[in-house]
Amino acid sequence: MNLEEQRQFILSGKVYNDLTPELIKARENTVFLTNKYNESFGKPTSEREAILKNLLKSIGKNVHFEPTFRCEFGFNISIGNNFYANFDCVMLDGGGIEIGNNVLFGPRVGIYTSNHSIDAEERINGGCYAKPVKIGNNVWIGAGVHINQGVTIGNNTIIGSGSIVTKDIPDNVIAAGVPCKVIRKITEKDKTGYKP
Amino acid sequence: MNLEEQRQFILSGKVYNDLTPELIKARENTVFLTNKYNESFGKPTSEREAILKNLLKSIGKNVHFEPTFRCEFGFNISIGNNFYANFDCVMLDGGGIEIGNNVLFGPRVGIYTSNHSIDAEERINGGCYAKPVKIGNNVWIGAGVHINQGVTIGNNTIIGSGSIVTKDIPDNVIAAGVPCKVIRKITEKDKTGYKP
Amino acid sequence: MNLEEQRQFILSGKVYNDLTPELIKARENTVFLTNKYNESFGKPTSEREAILKNLLKSIGKNVHFEPTFRCEFGFNISIGNNFYANFDCVMLDGGGIEIGNNVLFGPRVGIYTSNHSIDAEERINGGCYAKPVKIGNNVWIGAGVHINQGVTIGNNTIIGSGSIVTKDIPDNVIAAGVPCKVIRKITEKDKTGYKP
Repeated sequence: MNLEEQRQFILSGKVYNDLTPELIKARENTVFLTNKYNESFGKPTSEREAILKNLLKSIGKNVHFEPTFRCEFGFNISIGNNFYANFDCVMLDGGGIEIGNNVLFGPRVGIYTSNHSIDAEERINGGCYAKPVKIGNNVWIGAGVHINQGVTIGNNTIIGSGSIVTKDIPDNVIAAGVPCKVIRKITEKDKTGYKP
Repeated sequence: MNLEEQRQFILSGKVYNDLTPELIKARENTVFLTNKYNESFGKPTSEREAILKNLLKSIGKNVHFEPTFRCEFGFNISIGNNFYANFDCVMLDGGGIEIGNNVLFGPRVGIYTSNHSIDAEERINGGCYAKPVKIGNNVWIGAGVHINQGVTIGNNTIIGSGSIVTKDIPDNVIAAGVPCKVIRKITEKDKTGYKP
Repeated sequence: MNLEEQRQFILSGKVYNDLTPELIKARENTVFLTNKYNESFGKPTSEREAILKNLLKSIGKNVHFEPTFRCEFGFNISIGNNFYANFDCVMLDGGGIEIGNNVLFGPRVGIYTSNHSIDAEERINGGCYAKPVKIGNNVWIGAGVHINQGVTIGNNTIIGSGSIVTKDIPDNVIAAGVPCKVIRKITEKDKTGYKP
């Protein structure tokens, strides 16, 4: 299979071989492209977004990563408008990552769509399987949060710092912990009257 | 408001607009200054401390960060004498960070004084609020610890690796976990007779 | 004591002085060597492995760290064949780190063999003590896992993302959490029939 065929195969959720020459080469290329993006810090927005457009599947307007952004492939990452990731974001995107509009990441957020096989022999032979991660609109992911494969996080939701998200989190809640659980709903009472 | 007026407003604890041109520019300048510090690794101490003095509010003698140090502004960070932070320290200092004398950080410690607004509409419009973090004298913060806004950590205390500190921790204890809780007091029995 | 004598003393498990000129100089050298390794990304494998051989105690065939790899000394790290560490691996190796064959690290794994003294006065005077970490064959350590001093992880075992490993973990299990505990054994039922 060529790289595009492997990409589609991985997205299908089947166990794939993580160690093919095509995937190893693609990861290497991605490190160089993310290096280029990270080194472009401070340059005109148009120049930085052009690098991201080349690296990622799709991005909206006003997408910004503080240094140092890392991802596995990039070509499975879709990001909406007004995205801000603070320092040291990591995305392993084999299984696909979809991020809505107006999403904020604290420092050191990690998203991991691929797992290695559980059986040691299969793992040694490159076995991996992927599941997508989806993040809704207006979500804030706190610092140091880990998001595991297959997780969907609902609209307007907040994930507390250091949480490990192993299952879906609904809309309009604050959730936190290891593993991450809903703490409470967000309501009208959370409005402070702030206007910019 | 100019940058200094905004800085004071943020320190007051009121909901502020995180997205003003002045704050965005200040964060960008801070990335360049921390890059300069990180790239100065191995150069004479006097040269490195001069960069830190320009970046931070105040530092004592013998202040050292292993690469890669990152902070949001720098201008709200006060550090005492004999400070050592291992690799990849992150400080979001909008609300003010005060660190005493003889403090040690393991690798990948994060301090986050600013939170985004809980209400999604206010958050999208840049709403944030900050609370200070204070770390006493002779404290050791373990590897990978996250310290949330408003937390005070007492003198001589040890925070175990990977803890998420969401509430104040008193003097003279070992504390750890998610959320971080006191495990036990430190006593005279912990002396081993070590002399340098 | 010269550097080699101090190295042996640290490996003995006794309380040592972390602040000697020899150790400070060794750490500085290690940052330069790891910088050299990290900057060599994409260069021929033979060139990269030569840097690692100079940095680490011993390595097998096919040892690869994605950027940015950091370690304290390097000279106490032994790694077997077919090792892959994803982004931002940190190893504090004063007490010795032994890694078997076919081991995989997710992004941001940390191993910490040295602790500072519990007593504040001893800690300020540089007191530290170290215990080795051993990782068996065919192990997969998930993203963001912290491994504390003295821990042994058994063959074929998987550690879930974000875990803090404070005690030994046996062979052939999935373990996760804070602190990390065994969730279940890995059995023949985990085979999927995958062939590369």
